Amino acid sequence: MSEIGLYEAMSTLRAVRRLKPDPVPDEVLERVVRAATWAPSGANVQPWRVVVVQDPKKRQRLQELYIGPWRQYAKGHAASIEQLEGEARARQERMIAAADHLAEHLHEAPAILVFCFEPRRMAITDAGLDRPSVVGGGSVYPAVQNALLACRAEGLGCTLTTLLCFAEDEVKALLGLPESWFTCAFVPVGYPRLRGHGPISRRPVEQMAFRDDWGTPFTADSNG
Amino acid sequence: MSEIGLYEAMSTLRAVRRLKPDPVPDEVLERVVRAATWAPSGANVQPWRVVVVQDPKKRQRLQELYIGPWRQYAKGHAASIEQLEGEARARQERMIAAADHLAEHLHEAPAILVFCFEPRRMAITDAGLDRPSVVGGGSVYPAVQNALLACRAEGLGCTLTTLLCFAEDEVKALLGLPESWFTCAFVPVGYPRLRGHGPISRRPVEQMAFRDDWGTPFTADSNG
Repeated sequence: MSEIGLYEAMSTLRAVRRLKPDPVPDEVLERVVRAATWAPSGANVQPWRVVVVQDPKKRQRLQELYIGPWRQYAKGHAASIEQLEGEARARQERMIAAADHLAEHLHEAPAILVFCFEPRRMAITDAGLDRPSVVGGGSVYPAVQNALLACRAEGLGCTLTTLLCFAEDEVKALLGLPESWFTCAFVPVGYPRLRGHGPISRRPVEQMAFRDDWGTPFTADSNG
Repeated sequence: MSEIGLYEAMSTLRAVRRLKPDPVPDEVLERVVRAATWAPSGANVQPWRVVVVQDPKKRQRLQELYIGPWRQYAKGHAASIEQLEGEARARQERMIAAADHLAEHLHEAPAILVFCFEPRRMAITDAGLDRPSVVGGGSVYPAVQNALLACRAEGLGCTLTTLLCFAEDEVKALLGLPESWFTCAFVPVGYPRLRGHGPISRRPVEQMAFRDDWGTPFTADSNG
């Protein structure tokens, strides 16, 4: 099998929320979690672990815990969508429909990756700042992104959700996490029901990248 | 140019801290930041931006801001290294030597990517929990990881650091960030002085991934 190219994988990694219940071979899942282990982390501590949930009863329980927070979130999101028009609105509505499907069928995903982290192993450099801290995520989400990209390479649908953090105590009990470990990402994985990965919709580079000063677009032909 | 394979890029992405001052062409940097834009984010909001710092005076100022926090961090790290032995200790000492070099030569890196985020655009699901929050990072560090992987593809050395969060106010003023935006990652980029990317040292899958229950190793041949 010839390997998918890096840029091709990154540029076609969609959130795939409609998954077949068909099992995913263990050796495929092992490649996905191995890809996660390759990610960088602060001082190379790798302060994360992943629980691959395949047990049907545990997946069922995760779905029960997920549906409430999802409905709450969707309610708030619906209000913000009403302010959109045209294709932007249609795109958000399609996303919500797919996410609704995921919430109702989460237990049917043959594997749910639950990423966990231990904060005491992290040097969280923005912990003392007067704004929300994100730096702890710098030692876990690169690993999650590697796993998503590996799913893309393996033809597996996947999406990253963090809504189950609202039920963290229950998830910890369900999977037997030690007291000092917590949850940070949930990735349902399975073969796509529909077309799966493909074109993605993102802001152009000139809106996302600046040169030297905030607001000065960075593009290859913008250098005075 | 044939594209590097996804798994090859991920498995050889080292922290490269000794960089040549030679300029990196804009079209190469544009491919790196475009790769970042492809990353997923909560509700596809992309609540991050990146400032590509090439201006020599601004790079010099970033180095001046970086060296203090680095020395402080290195002092604490040195104490923990003393407890290690053999190859583990040697590896940490090599890392510190390279990071020392980076701290002293940060301004020589031809480009420093400063990733910024706006928390009010994020749904931080773990904000109310009684432990450090990381979920905001889920909408920014996948983009940073894409940028690192793209550097790998382009033959550029790079490493992710967050130490400049200790000087966030000064960095915001230097780059003109709006009040509601903050900093979360700093990636010095340049062509490697030495061999650059290559083999990496990570924990094996059976230590990082569990099946259904915390502590039960997940491997392809561990299934009953």
